[in-house]
Amino acid sequence: MFASGSHSLCFGMDAVDDADKLPETAINEVTSFFESAPPLTDAAETEICLKEFVDRNTSLSGINGKANRVVCVTSGGTTVPLEKQCVRYIDNFASGHRGAASTEYFLKAGYSVIFLYRRGGCQPFCSLLPDDPLLECFTVADDSIIEMDPLHAETVKKAITETRAAVADGILLKLPFTTIFEYLQILQLISASLRGLGPSAIFYLAAAVSDFYVPWESMALHKIQSASGPLDMRLAQVPKMLSVLRNEWAPMAFYISFKLETDKDILLAKADMALKKYKMHMVIANELSTRKEEVIVVTEQEKVTVRRDSTQAGAEVECPLVELVVDRHSAYIKKVDA
Amino acid sequence: MFASGSHSLCFGMDAVDDADKLPETAINEVTSFFESAPPLTDAAETEICLKEFVDRNTSLSGINGKANRVVCVTSGGTTVPLEKQCVRYIDNFASGHRGAASTEYFLKAGYSVIFLYRRGGCQPFCSLLPDDPLLECFTVADDSIIEMDPLHAETVKKAITETRAAVADGILLKLPFTTIFEYLQILQLISASLRGLGPSAIFYLAAAVSDFYVPWESMALHKIQSASGPLDMRLAQVPKMLSVLRNEWAPMAFYISFKLETDKDILLAKADMALKKYKMHMVIANELSTRKEEVIVVTEQEKVTVRRDSTQAGAEVECPLVELVVDRHSAYIKKVDA
Repeated sequence: MFASGSHSLCFGMDAVDDADKLPETAINEVTSFFESAPPLTDAAETEICLKEFVDRNTSLSGINGKANRVVCVTSGGTTVPLEKQCVRYIDNFASGHRGAASTEYFLKAGYSVIFLYRRGGCQPFCSLLPDDPLLECFTVADDSIIEMDPLHAETVKKAITETRAAVADGILLKLPFTTIFEYLQILQLISASLRGLGPSAIFYLAAAVSDFYVPWESMALHKIQSASGPLDMRLAQVPKMLSVLRNEWAPMAFYISFKLETDKDILLAKADMALKKYKMHMVIANELSTRKEEVIVVTEQEKVTVRRDSTQAGAEVECPLVELVVDRHSAYIKKVDA
Repeated sequence: MFASGSHSLCFGMDAVDDADKLPETAINEVTSFFESAPPLTDAAETEICLKEFVDRNTSLSGINGKANRVVCVTSGGTTVPLEKQCVRYIDNFASGHRGAASTEYFLKAGYSVIFLYRRGGCQPFCSLLPDDPLLECFTVADDSIIEMDPLHAETVKKAITETRAAVADGILLKLPFTTIFEYLQILQLISASLRGLGPSAIFYLAAAVSDFYVPWESMALHKIQSASGPLDMRLAQVPKMLSVLRNEWAPMAFYISFKLETDKDILLAKADMALKKYKMHMVIANELSTRKEEVIVVTEQEKVTVRRDSTQAGAEVECPLVELVVDRHSAYIKKVDA
């Protein structure tokens, strides 16, 4: 049912594919994307939050000697509204588990984390909870005291205490998004706040960002009406924001992007391409069916397969993955500082 | 950015628009839709659950003299996968609040409810909870006892006790869906189980069902690859399932469908059209911006505006709406039985 050839269907997991344009063109496209985007609600408050968060965390001594280190973890899929008064939208499948779990390990490693997440998506410290924890983990006794199901007690306690502690300690800042417009605008604000940290900042871009969108200006105001017959629609490409982020917004930061494919043959080739074209420091290659078991970390020097520790119940692949990232980031800081 | 004319973009809130076909064509289309759909997981278990639920509830004496009355409430939006190993999909905005709240009032009115809901969407008795109730309603004290935030205590207790009670009493059956394929297949199973109840069954179709989809057979197996330039795609129309449900699957039931529009001028005309074309007993007309304050109930005889009681904190429009539905349903049963 798809048009074939040069116009085939495509929503990539990030906005990095197939750009073969001069940086200037990219900057112009980005400028016009932002100019035509609906204004971000609470932009001023978000800027203040970010400034306070970064100021506080860069003045901390840090645990494990990780003072000043801040990672921006993006998580979950962006939506593309099809109408201004949005009824229908295109979405990317992404539970947000990768970003939420990685956030936990970065916090443990002594990093401060800006968690840019899809509203309603997975939250750090909550990955082991059932889908509907309130209804599934609690019961109300006859004396109308709420009791926890013993099966879930430890998980629930851990989720609540660790989340509250991280937010109270000021080492975790959670910022939600829904649309591609919100995501890219908040990412720009984050990059402005992290630019001053130079090589101490990481962008860990695990979110599934749409490649195509309907420009706000040309979007229908009202719900678009039916007609009989098949539906044809045309979407514009999202500008190659990763290129501008990497080269202009925060050029000294350490960059990690993700590639998700269902076809293994394509995966490594695309990861290599993203590494070179966008000057990423690491590209994490995921195959959809095995992504919870293993990932391949692609850098200029090496391809490392990282597997979860299958001998340990509940062990996650994000644990060794973040360890490797922290190791390479430390080496990067040393190299830049030298 | 959309192709104009006869092929304009459209994802309706139900599969009822613009069909002007003979019933036979509709039946053929439905048959071929089901034949090409991916098989429903747990179809046999769902059938058994439904049979047990309906048998148990039709043998109950009922409260308020509502013995035998079962309502199927559908809730939330369906997704349209764009690939078999699904990474991208089209979604309809629908929190599922209307269906979840209506379920509560139907239960209070003595009905048994089959709640066909979008996985992850709003749940009955939970509408007053914050977005992330576990993290927002509880704290862990120093002695590692979990305590409830007093602000939310009553709401949380009510949510847990009433949900558990309804499920334990066997008057609430919750069935989740995600895709358009799952939704329509489960709806068919439900209609088969309710057919024997004749006029005592209600279909209260509040879910936002996609009008267009990619037929499973013609769907790409792997993630579709990028190409430069704009994206063109073509989707097929979902067959007019409502017509077959109404006329073939459970022809004696009482039918309520919903129309959501952002443009008020179009709304009532479309509600009228749905009423006549699909022989609905009631069509609930919602305008996107005011849908939580008021709805217009359209029947053959009347147009009634139903408003929430704004003098009472927390009063919902679903309360008087379900009252009106129950009243009209009682009249319908009397008329059919006479």
